Amino acid sequence: MLDTLKLIARKVREAERSLSPQFDRGQELYQGADGTPTLAVDKMAEDVILDFVKERDLPWNVLSEEAGFIDRKAKKTLVIDPIDGTHNCVMGVPFYSVSLALGTKDMLDIEAGVVQNLVTGDLYCAEKGKGASCNGERIIAREFSPYRSLFIVYTGKYAAQDNFDVARRGVRARSFGCASLEMCLVAEGHADAYYMNCEVPEKSVRIIDIAASALILREAGGDIVDLNDKRLNMGFDLMERSNFLAYGDRKVKELIM
Amino acid sequence: MLDTLKLIARKVREAERSLSPQFDRGQELYQGADGTPTLAVDKMAEDVILDFVKERDLPWNVLSEEAGFIDRKAKKTLVIDPIDGTHNCVMGVPFYSVSLALGTKDMLDIEAGVVQNLVTGDLYCAEKGKGASCNGERIIAREFSPYRSLFIVYTGKYAAQDNFDVARRGVRARSFGCASLEMCLVAEGHADAYYMNCEVPEKSVRIIDIAASALILREAGGDIVDLNDKRLNMGFDLMERSNFLAYGDRKVKELIM
Repeated sequence: MLDTLKLIARKVREAERSLSPQFDRGQELYQGADGTPTLAVDKMAEDVILDFVKERDLPWNVLSEEAGFIDRKAKKTLVIDPIDGTHNCVMGVPFYSVSLALGTKDMLDIEAGVVQNLVTGDLYCAEKGKGASCNGERIIAREFSPYRSLFIVYTGKYAAQDNFDVARRGVRARSFGCASLEMCLVAEGHADAYYMNCEVPEKSVRIIDIAASALILREAGGDIVDLNDKRLNMGFDLMERSNFLAYGDRKVKELIM
Repeated sequence: MLDTLKLIARKVREAERSLSPQFDRGQELYQGADGTPTLAVDKMAEDVILDFVKERDLPWNVLSEEAGFIDRKAKKTLVIDPIDGTHNCVMGVPFYSVSLALGTKDMLDIEAGVVQNLVTGDLYCAEKGKGASCNGERIIAREFSPYRSLFIVYTGKYAAQDNFDVARRGVRARSFGCASLEMCLVAEGHADAYYMNCEVPEKSVRIIDIAASALILREAGGDIVDLNDKRLNMGFDLMERSNFLAYGDRKVKELIM
């Protein structure tokens, strides 16, 4: 199953890498199922995945950013963000990914997840109960040390003040604009936390953004909670949004919450 | 002259790309000339440049992050940051660069500058009075539109509150942790501003970080000022630091200052 997810990620990467320089990645095509405009590169990547699922007749439904829920009368659902970090992709910032997760009804029953950086090819994988890896090597979230701390925070128009308060508690802070890869940086022990408090609920994170990377983080020894310190769970529903704190070490949670 | 800078950038990129997976990029070797620890990958890249200058007997002094000022009794000085965004490089975040600029005494007399993303190979160049380019194509900073605004800001331990106020004035905000490439994003019209107000002067930007990218931005039609709205100039001195606002369109300056 993980091998199938990896193969799909590779197909998306090959397709994105082979786009011609004339292809206008940022062209707005129409309104997607999540209510935001579908850009040309999102559509291209989504089509690669949907075609694959159909051609192989995989026994899965699909929940995707652009197409919404595709009911294929299956028990399991493939939860995808065909391009996470679309704006980075459009800008040429090499920090965007494909995110693929397989589960039944919500984040806590996801059984496998794959996130791939579409530029570098870095491939993060996890299977429930079996640990997480990057490029085949086991990854483990790091112990918190204030002397080398790095916090990833949400910035932008709807950022609540406490995002910035968190940013200032670390030695370094970043805001890369690609939730799945930012979560993976916590999972592999390069960052200590990823915090998002968005004042406008419709701009917070969705299941498609972090279904795979939340499993990867949890399998690497970290966890992700909502801002009431409840273990984060989200249904397979594009309309559901949540703020969160993801961390590698519980000490970070005590520091921030 | 620009061709020589491009060749040096290529040498650094080849050397960095061919490091073995066992090479510990983040190993702290000793205290560099700028007062921060010299990491193994910084030293490796600096050696590539210094060896090149010596072997070709280029008629230039060198000012570098780790080695400081190397007086070769020349009129011109090569101002280098061998790896800008070292921490990204150590983390495996594909957003770090080599920055090379050639001038006589300060930022305003820089005559040529090159910044290369060491992962993707994206190559930004400028010669004074001759415009700026990315991968050989002319780049121009974009006109400001509030509907698609993206502001890059400084975050982290020493960030003044107004960095966050700026971040919230745009639709999107980022903090990538690599000053030269962040400046180039403004130059090529993907971001509208790059703002840094660091409360601790010793953590602000240095000439080596932005000598090349400031020329690239200015040649692309943008500009960079200090926080008193004075056109930014900095001497060839590792101890000099400054906060700044870089922008593509004057309207952004009016909005922010």
